[in-house]
This record gives sequence, C-alpha cells and structure tokens, in this order.
Amino acid sequence: MALAERILAGDVRAAARLMRDIDDGFKSAVEELKVLYPHTGNAFIIGITGPPGAGKSTLVDQITAAYRRRSKRVGIVAIDPTSPFTGGAILGDRIRMNRHAEDDGVFIRSLATRGHLGGLSRSTGDVVNVMDAMGMDVVIIETVGVGQDEIDIVRMAHTTAVVMVPGLGDDIQAIKAGILEIGDVFVVNKADRDDADRTARELAAMLEMNPDKDREWQPKVLKTEASRNRGIEELVNEIEAHRSYLHHSGAIRRLLEEKNTRLFLELLKERLFAEVYGHIHVNGKFREIVDGLVNRKQDPYSAVEAILAEKFGGVKN
Amino acid sequence: MALAERILAGDVRAAARLMRDIDDGFKSAVEELKVLYPHTGNAFIIGITGPPGAGKSTLVDQITAAYRRRSKRVGIVAIDPTSPFTGGAILGDRIRMNRHAEDDGVFIRSLATRGHLGGLSRSTGDVVNVMDAMGMDVVIIETVGVGQDEIDIVRMAHTTAVVMVPGLGDDIQAIKAGILEIGDVFVVNKADRDDADRTARELAAMLEMNPDKDREWQPKVLKTEASRNRGIEELVNEIEAHRSYLHHSGAIRRLLEEKNTRLFLELLKERLFAEVYGHIHVNGKFREIVDGLVNRKQDPYSAVEAILAEKFGGVKN
Repeated sequence: MALAERILAGDVRAAARLMRDIDDGFKSAVEELKVLYPHTGNAFIIGITGPPGAGKSTLVDQITAAYRRRSKRVGIVAIDPTSPFTGGAILGDRIRMNRHAEDDGVFIRSLATRGHLGGLSRSTGDVVNVMDAMGMDVVIIETVGVGQDEIDIVRMAHTTAVVMVPGLGDDIQAIKAGILEIGDVFVVNKADRDDADRTARELAAMLEMNPDKDREWQPKVLKTEASRNRGIEELVNEIEAHRSYLHHSGAIRRLLEEKNTRLFLELLKERLFAEVYGHIHVNGKFREIVDGLVNRKQDPYSAVEAILAEKFGGVKN
Repeated sequence: MALAERILAGDVRAAARLMRDIDDGFKSAVEELKVLYPHTGNAFIIGITGPPGAGKSTLVDQITAAYRRRSKRVGIVAIDPTSPFTGGAILGDRIRMNRHAEDDGVFIRSLATRGHLGGLSRSTGDVVNVMDAMGMDVVIIETVGVGQDEIDIVRMAHTTAVVMVPGLGDDIQAIKAGILEIGDVFVVNKADRDDADRTARELAAMLEMNPDKDREWQPKVLKTEASRNRGIEELVNEIEAHRSYLHHSGAIRRLLEEKNTRLFLELLKERLFAEVYGHIHVNGKFREIVDGLVNRKQDPYSAVEAILAEKFGGVKN
C-alpha cells in the first residue's frame, strides 16, 4: 500500500513509479489503484485530438500555461506513437513541454501506443486516475491520430477539443465527419494560413447539419495560432463554458455513467481473457489449436466454443 | 448452411448477404463461416495502409487493374471511417472503384470503423475469409489512417505496402516510425511532387537504421503516381517478389501461425466477454456496479475480481 499512500500525501516520485508499474502490467499496481480510486473523481479531464500535423502538442503546451495562470495544477497524458526500435514512446516525457519542466504544478506522462497489457484506453484511464488522486485540477489527454483508438481514449474526457488545420484533403474530410460527434469544441489551429476561414466555415456548416444540433450544447469553432499564443484564452474559456454546462444541465451524470461503464467493461474483458488464456496456454491445448487453424483442420469458431463449453459447462450459442 | 454452399458454388449475392450478416452480428453467420473455413487459405492477402491523403484508394484501384490484367480475381476490403449521421461507411461500396463496377472478377466490400460486434480486425478477418472461400486470388485490405487499429488490421495480410506522401510534418514522421516495421514494401505516392525524392531517401535511411535489416527480406521504397498509373507494375512486381520470398524462405509458416493466433485470441476474448456480460446484465448486477463506480463507492478492479470469482470459483490474482 506504500505507493498509494505516498501518492495521496503528494509524493510525485511515487506517482511516477506507479505509472511505470501500470505500464509494466505489475499485479501490485492494481492493489494501489484500488486504494486510490475513492480519491478520484475531482479532476476535470480534457481530451485533445485531431489529425497528425495539427499542432496539438503546442496547443496543449499553451492550454497548460493558461491553466497555470489560473493557479490550476495540470496533469498531461500524451499518447505517443511507439518507436519500433526502442518499444518506447517516440516523443518521450523529457523532450516535450520543456517550458513546464521546472514547474511542480505540471505533471507529464507519455504513454506509448504499444506494449500495454490490456487496452491503451484502459491504461490511459489508470494513469488519469493516478493524476486525479494526486490532486491535479485539470488532466489533459492528448492523442496523435484520428483512429478508433484515439476516439476511445478521448471519450474518457469530460470535454473534448478536436483540432484541425486549414486546407484538408478528401480523406481528412471523411475522418473529420467521423470525429464530429466527439468534439465539444472545435479548433482550427495555424489560423494564419490562407484556408483558415474557409476551413472554419466548412466545419461550422458540418456541425449545423448534425441532427443532434438541437441538443443543449452547440459546439463552436474557434481559431487559434498556438505557436504565437493567439486564441488560447478564448479556447480555455470555451472549454470552461462546456464544463459549466455539464454541471448545470446535469449532463455530467450520464457522461460519468458512460465513462465508467466503458472502463469497467474493458477491464472485465481483459481479466476474463487473462484467466482463460493462462489456462489453455499452460495445458498445451493452445499449440494444438493453432496448428489446427494453420492447417485448416479446425475452424476458430468451433475451437472457441469448445473452450467456453469446458469453462462454463455449455455455451449459449 | 444454404449461404455457405451457395458461396462455394460461386454465388456472389450469397457472399454479399453473408457479409451483411457478419456486420449485423447474426449468430447464423458463425455457422456459415465454419463451413467456409476449410475452403480458405488460398488467397494472397495484401494490406495497404498509410496516413490520410496518401492516395491509397487510387493506388488500390490501379493495383486491382494490374492484377486483372494478370487474370487474377481480386477482392477488396476497404475500411472506411464511419459517418456519425448514418452509422454507415462514408465512402461506401458504390462510389468507390467505379471502373471495376462492371467486372465480375472484382468484389468490393466496405467496412465501417464502428458498429462491429467484436473487434474490427476480426470482422475484417471474417470478410477476408469469405472472399478467400469465394475463390478470389488476391484480397486487398485497405485502411485509412495509421492508428493501432489499422496496424492490427494490416497484420492480417501476407504482404503489406505502406503508402506515404512527399513532404511530411513531425507528427507524420513519428507515425512513420511506428509503422516502419509492418511494411514489406514502401510506396511514396504522388511522386510528381517536389519533395518525393527526399521523402523516399529519408524513408530508405530510416529502414537502414532498423536493427532487423539483416533479415532476409529488405523492404524497398518505390515511387508511384497512382492517378497517372505510373510505377504500378513495378509495385505489383515487388509485392509478388515478397510473396515468393515468403514461400521460398518458409517464412510463410510463422506468418500464418501469428495471424491465426491473433484472430483466434480475439475471437476468444469477444465470446468470453459476451458470455459473462450477458450474465451480469440480466441479473441487474450491472446497474449496481455502474452506480457504485460513479459514486466512487466501488472500484472497478474489485468489481471485476468479484465477477471472476463467481464465474470461476476463485481468481488467481
């Protein structure tokens, strides 16, 4: 229990250590997380997502500075692409966010997109919980990319900002549609570029077409130039306006139910699998099944049904 | 059994119907897939991946035409971003690949990135198996995006081509590193652009740094202009060279073991979860757990352990 207690007492090194243990899949980390859990639920969680090249890291840097000016403690979970050579995150904690390196009101953790036992969104959830228990007022989750994984991850946030750049090709347009519904705020970054106004107008038009637009919260499209710190205060104000809306409207309750349900089901899936996989792996059955599959002597559907029948004594098909 | 038998007899409409049933998660689809499974394993599976805007669809179109000139039947599984409004694939089967619409040697299926019961990579695997059983000589899996999902999907291929465009930002560079190891062939498309040579050189240099470079197959970097059909024959020849390598070196055996293992484990995970989830959902326990989580009265780790203990009579922790 030592780590969890040290974290609750404000020990930053203990927090970093637990996050490593989570990464490494240590069983002991689960016991620590159990102790921390009742102390979570206080942080405001912001998701930042968008396609590569949108300038999200710089934007996160500026948002962090803005919250620091408001005397808030800020945790950052950056989901980095994984290096194929080291297996670690490419960008890494150290080279990111140098301006906040000396600030003990900012805690940064990079998570690589690979090597997590269990889903990446669950690992992210565990790390967010540690930051929450540490007393971070705001936790920012930043993802690079626009796939389903990233969408799952930012769904853990209370408020999500989707970042775009001016001048988008057809593929990006398609993806943009795919993430329209997860954005509570839309940001056209690099707003000094020629196409910025057009992109902002197009985005606003797409949001208008959304059949959900009569919902109480209508997402806005803001323009920023993160590298010159332009539009950041307006963005943070809009994020805070969404936070107020969640609480005043009562929408926060449904959001928390969805969030918790997703994370619980993911954990259940992972632990169930670990239980059964350990069993078939040990008794040599696994090798036999794989050989049968490769030789097309056995189909995977029947193999899985046989395992379920053995474990549960009969399968509802 | 009717559908599977009709598919094996060459009935294209039966194949389309089974793919819809797979999408909709019909239980009957599993029975059909069991019948088809012994008839699979003959198709050569090509994965095409890369960032948005790289021109992958046009490239797939040209590769398809090249294989048709070689009298091969071609199946295409296109993983499309999902529309938030319709829930369906945005690009759709109809507007894609018009030039092959009249050709009964080409079968195209779009899969939306959402709404699949079970993982998208497993649904993709099922659809590939149907095309394989239909007698398609080549099946091309095309993904839009570069996240972990896409990587999991293209890992089902025998040979994977990673498509890049000239002139990449930092984020893309990072992602490029993340997918270096999955490419058997690298393609710089839109090679008429200024930066094409530099991008190709940089890619080749990154591949040189790869510690795996002493492996028997050294991936090449090719340049194409898909929209003008330039470099396509060379690309198809390189893809075929990789196919020959797999068979002559015996590497195909390990590849098939990995592929089958992944798909089997994913299926196992999904069915196990369905089994247990159905149970806790019905008896009202689920609602109780979610309420406990939202109120922070119960932590998710202990809740999962309680369910496992009940199901399996004690959990190895």
